[in-house]
This record gives sequence, C-alpha cells and structure tokens, in this order.
Amino acid sequence: FLSTEPIRATLFPGDGIGPEIAHSVKEVFNAAEVPIEWEEHFVGSEVDPRTQSFLTWESLESVRKNGVGLKGPMATPIGKGHRSLNLTLRKELGLYANVRPCRSLPGYKTRYDDVDLVTIRENTEGEYSGLEHQVVRGVVESIKIITRQASIRVAEYAFHYAKSNGRQRVSAIHKANIMRKSDGLFLKCCREVAEKYPEIVYEEVIIDNCCMMLVKKPSLFDVLVMPNLYGDIISDLCAGLIGGLGLTPSCNIGEGGICLAEAVHGSAPDIAGKNLANPTALLLSGVMMLRHLNLNDQADRIHNAVLSTIAEGKYRTGDLGGTASTSDFTKAVIGHL
Amino acid sequence: FLSTEPIRATLFPGDGIGPEIAHSVKEVFNAAEVPIEWEEHFVGSEVDPRTQSFLTWESLESVRKNGVGLKGPMATPIGKGHRSLNLTLRKELGLYANVRPCRSLPGYKTRYDDVDLVTIRENTEGEYSGLEHQVVRGVVESIKIITRQASIRVAEYAFHYAKSNGRQRVSAIHKANIMRKSDGLFLKCCREVAEKYPEIVYEEVIIDNCCMMLVKKPSLFDVLVMPNLYGDIISDLCAGLIGGLGLTPSCNIGEGGICLAEAVHGSAPDIAGKNLANPTALLLSGVMMLRHLNLNDQADRIHNAVLSTIAEGKYRTGDLGGTASTSDFTKAVIGHL
Ligand SMILES: CC(C)[C@H](C(=O)O)[C@@H](O)C(=O)O
Ligand SMILES: CC(C)[C@H](C(=O)O)[C@@H](O)C(=O)O
Repeated sequence: FLSTEPIRATLFPGDGIGPEIAHSVKEVFNAAEVPIEWEEHFVGSEVDPRTQSFLTWESLESVRKNGVGLKGPMATPIGKGHRSLNLTLRKELGLYANVRPCRSLPGYKTRYDDVDLVTIRENTEGEYSGLEHQVVRGVVESIKIITRQASIRVAEYAFHYAKSNGRQRVSAIHKANIMRKSDGLFLKCCREVAEKYPEIVYEEVIIDNCCMMLVKKPSLFDVLVMPNLYGDIISDLCAGLIGGLGLTPSCNIGEGGICLAEAVHGSAPDIAGKNLANPTALLLSGVMMLRHLNLNDQADRIHNAVLSTIAEGKYRTGDLGGTASTSDFTKAVIGHL
Repeated sequence: FLSTEPIRATLFPGDGIGPEIAHSVKEVFNAAEVPIEWEEHFVGSEVDPRTQSFLTWESLESVRKNGVGLKGPMATPIGKGHRSLNLTLRKELGLYANVRPCRSLPGYKTRYDDVDLVTIRENTEGEYSGLEHQVVRGVVESIKIITRQASIRVAEYAFHYAKSNGRQRVSAIHKANIMRKSDGLFLKCCREVAEKYPEIVYEEVIIDNCCMMLVKKPSLFDVLVMPNLYGDIISDLCAGLIGGLGLTPSCNIGEGGICLAEAVHGSAPDIAGKNLANPTALLLSGVMMLRHLNLNDQADRIHNAVLSTIAEGKYRTGDLGGTASTSDFTKAVIGHL
C-alpha cells in the first residue's frame, strides 16, 4: 500500500527550547522527504475547562484523530486550578506505556559503552494516582494503585515489543518483598503474560538490586517493564548511563494504538531562543514515531544521520561539550541523510 | 575517661556466610585490641511470640541494653505467621535512620573513582508501612505514610551528621512534584531543620534527576537524606558505583541512641561455609560502630588496614575477582593493622 496522501501528525513544539528543536525536526523530516503533514498545537494561555489544564481540548482531539504525535518539552505554569500538562496528556489520551530505548551512542563517550536496553514504564497509575490526604496533622498518606487491567496491558505491550524487536529477555522490576500485594499483583500479571511468550526469557528483579546492577553491568538488561514510579526513576538512571535526557528518545503508547513520541528533557528556559539547544532527543523521538507508522526507511535514514553526526563529533551542541548551534547540528544531520 | 571494663556489644552473625565474616571481624577486633566483649545472638529456629519473628526477645533486649550491635546478613525463612527479620529489628528497635557512607576504594577499580557521599535513609515508614489491601478484585492499594515526627528526626540526624563529619551539603531527595502532600511534608521538615544549620548548603533534588546525576557525576553529592523507598533504591545504586554491597558498610541509628551496624549484602548461601566470603562490608560496619563508641583510634587502624589490603590487591576474595579465602583476607588485614 503506497499512499500519496501525506500522513497527518500532531506536533506540540512545547515551551522554552521546544520551538527550536521542533523546527529542527521539521527541517530534517522535510529533507528526508517524510510524507508527514504536521498539525501544530500550542499550549494555551488560559485553562481550558474541558481539560482542566492549559492544553486545549482541540489539541487532544488532534492526537486522537491523527493517532500519532510528537511532543517537545512542556513546562506546567505554577499555580492552582489546573493540571500538569504531562499528566493531562497521559490521562486524557490513556498513554499507558512509556517506551524508552537507551543505547550507547558510538563516538559520544560516557563511562559506559555497552548499554542497549529498553525501559517500558506503566504510565497511568501507581504512585501517580493523585490520591493523597492528611490523616491527622503531621501524618500524610499517599495511595499507590496497582490494577490488573493496567498491569496486564503494559506487560502485554512489553512482551509484544520484545518479540517484534528481536529482544531476548524481559525483566519485571518490583519491590514485592515489601509491597507484597500491589507489586505482587503487578508481577502476577507479568508472569501470566510471560507464559504466552515462551521464546522470551522472563525474570523478576527487585528495584534496589536492579539499580545496583544497572550501574555495574547494564549489559545484563534487555527489556525492563515496571510500575510508574520505578519506571520514572530507572528510565532517567539509564539515560544518565549514555549521556542524559538530551540524547534519549521516548514514545508513549495510548488507548486505541495512539503513539505520542516525546522528548523527556526539560524546556531549558535559560538557553531558549538562543539557537543552542540539542535537538537529538526530539529527532530520535520522531524516529520512534516513524517506526510506529512503519515508515522504516525514513526512520533508518534519519536515525543513522543523527548517529553519524554525533559520532563524527564535529558539530556538538553545548550540552555535549561542543559549540555548535542548533542550526549547525541540524544542517550536519541533513548532510548525513 | 579510660575504662578497663570492656564495652559489651551485641553480635548477630546471621545466616549463610554470616558466621564466617563475623568470625573475621572478631579476629581483626582482637588483633586491634578493641575493648569490646561480644554478646552473640542467633536467629531462633522458632517464632518468638513476643517479637512475632524468628528473632528472640532476648536478642532485641541485648541490643537495647548494650546500645550497640553488629549484624551480619539474615535471610528471613519463607512462610506465614512471622515478620521479616530486618523489618522486625527496624520496628522493635526504632531504627529510624540507615546511614551508608559510600566512597571509592583506592585500588579497586570501577567506572567511578570520585564517589564520596553518604546516604541517610528514613527507615521506619513511607512505603514500608505494610498497609495494603485489595479494594476490589484486580485493584490493590498500598499506602505510603509520611509523618512530621519521623521526617524531622531523620532530617535532624542528617544535618547533625553532616556537621559533625565536616560535610558541606545536604540534598533532600523527593518526588514532591507528584506526591505533593507526602513528599511535600518530608521536604517541609527538611527545610525547617536546614534553617538551623546555615553553614550547611541545603538543596532538594527530584529522585529521577538524582539517579541520573549520580551515574553521570556522583561527585555532585555529599550527604543525601530521603524517605524509606528512595533510600533503599539510591543506597544500592551508590553501592554499585563503588563495587557493590560487599564493600559498603552501614549503620542504623535507633531510639535512645542505639547504633546497630549492619552488612547489607545477602547471606550468599551458595558460598556459605566455604571460606570464600568477603568480610569487608561487615568489617567496615564494625568500624562505624567503633566510631559511634568514640573508639576512633581503633576505628582508624582497622579502617586503614582494610583499605590497604584492598588497595594492595594481593588478597582479594572471589567477588572482587581474586582467589583469596576469607581467612587469607582476614590475615592480610591483621598484617596491615
Ligand atoms: C515532569 C514529571 C511529572 C514527569 C514524571 O514524573 O513522570 C517526568 O519526570 C517524566 O519522567 O516524564
Ligand atoms: C531485604 C529488604 C527488606 C531490605 C529493604 O528493602 O529495606 C533491603 O533491601 C535493605 O536495603 O536493607
């Protein structure tokens, strides 16, 4: 099936450095002749009562309709009466799995050169339930929710991902020796799904031990699946192993097969508008979106061009110790296409 | 004040390799003429109804009476009707702070050579409350409890520790952007205590970012204080940076000034009884106990002897890639006293 109609995808440039790195993505995608037409949406300046956040209902509808989107960093304005932008997106679009491949970048030296793993984080419940209250003065409880439905869903995604990406092993990360019931339920669901994938090795690793092994020998790990907070922690730890959030792509899988790819670094207001930002994480997130759309040729070309530019080392932005501007880097990537 | 009466201290050799490494500690302490008389207590073979665990009431009383103790690894037998040994100790002795200094060992190469930090973990509440239940089939909630009392207590310990050990900075680790109320209370308490220590730099670091920075640049950190689960995770991560739990000492501070030092590695049943275990973590934990007793000369001598033995590299146990036996290593340490 070859369509000449372009595919529509939602683009949230986001705040701070967001517009600059989004611009870089658009240029690279154009140069690679990716058949995508962007539908750009911006964070509003007022709370939309329908979303209770600065995200407009229309922008959410755009992702729902297109089924795919790419998102830059969004900084939630401080104040009351509205929800965090990131949490609103996760909730409203049912983004149940956050997927972050993390692989050592040839030519960009860190203490590790053997990282090649993927973290898959449950993205809707756990410690992020928002259920908290003061029991009496000086005593607060926060409630962590683990459900069978969300655990099975993310486990299924993880095994499906492992199988279709030629991965060998899925590790479920937990603290079920302490949270026997909640993390116990999460593990039970992972085990159930694991039985349907006899070709994938399944193991369970306690989170503290997992973090210790990740810093000692990350090559032990392949695909990791885990509840929300552990995923938040471990995905950032893994990003650190290969150089930081500026280099690691991510994508969120949502209800009805939505894919919202996302650079998870901050909006870096200090360097915003100065043509200094590194567009790598957003570019590679865009590549994840392309793979989701089965645009594998374009995905490969862009992926390789980004890796070659970094490996070559001539055009490096400030975060990687270089002096290149965002546009220098973007041009270099285009040159490598 | 020079006493000729020996100081009584409780010793829990523990399970698996516990008795062997405890033996090593006794030999080294003897050779260093440490004025300590050990009161040895073993994990019972039946549940003591007064502790609801395999730990006897008498053994807990021994620590309470002596005020100091040293503990090897304890493996909680599987089954119902009794509590985890480690959790029983923490609960019954009110061990509210777990302190783990973590410093790169000269001569033992890992990917890091610049680690010098101390994690201080709240040890009694948080996610370890044990409060969990199934709400309806397939929906479980676990309750995290943060109290003002426990948070102030551990924060006070952390700042006191920083000041009396010549440390410059205390970082409170949290996820208050999500758990606004519970981690928010923890931070509020840390801030209150921080005001009383203007000479110590105080900062707050979100746990995911903290883990990323720890693997990128651990030298950014000095003293870290945090709720229970974050402490569990981060202390193991930090141990990984310098080589693992076999090398890192720990001590628990409890109600009434109790100090129970503890090797936090496992009981390694596979190598138990074979004279292969590395006694370093228990030896260095013993050193922490000596410092608590103000036996600083002996503490320094033993500490330096252990470090010299490791730095020399002639006698290394299997976990560090060597072939030395527990007794070889112990003899070498004694030789370096
Ligand atoms: C910004 C914050 C709410 C978010 C999270 O905790 O999930 C971030 O750390 C992430 O990983 O996307
Ligand atoms: C054994 C386990 C209950 C314990 C914990 O989670 O606290 C361990 O990991 C530790 O850090 O001492």
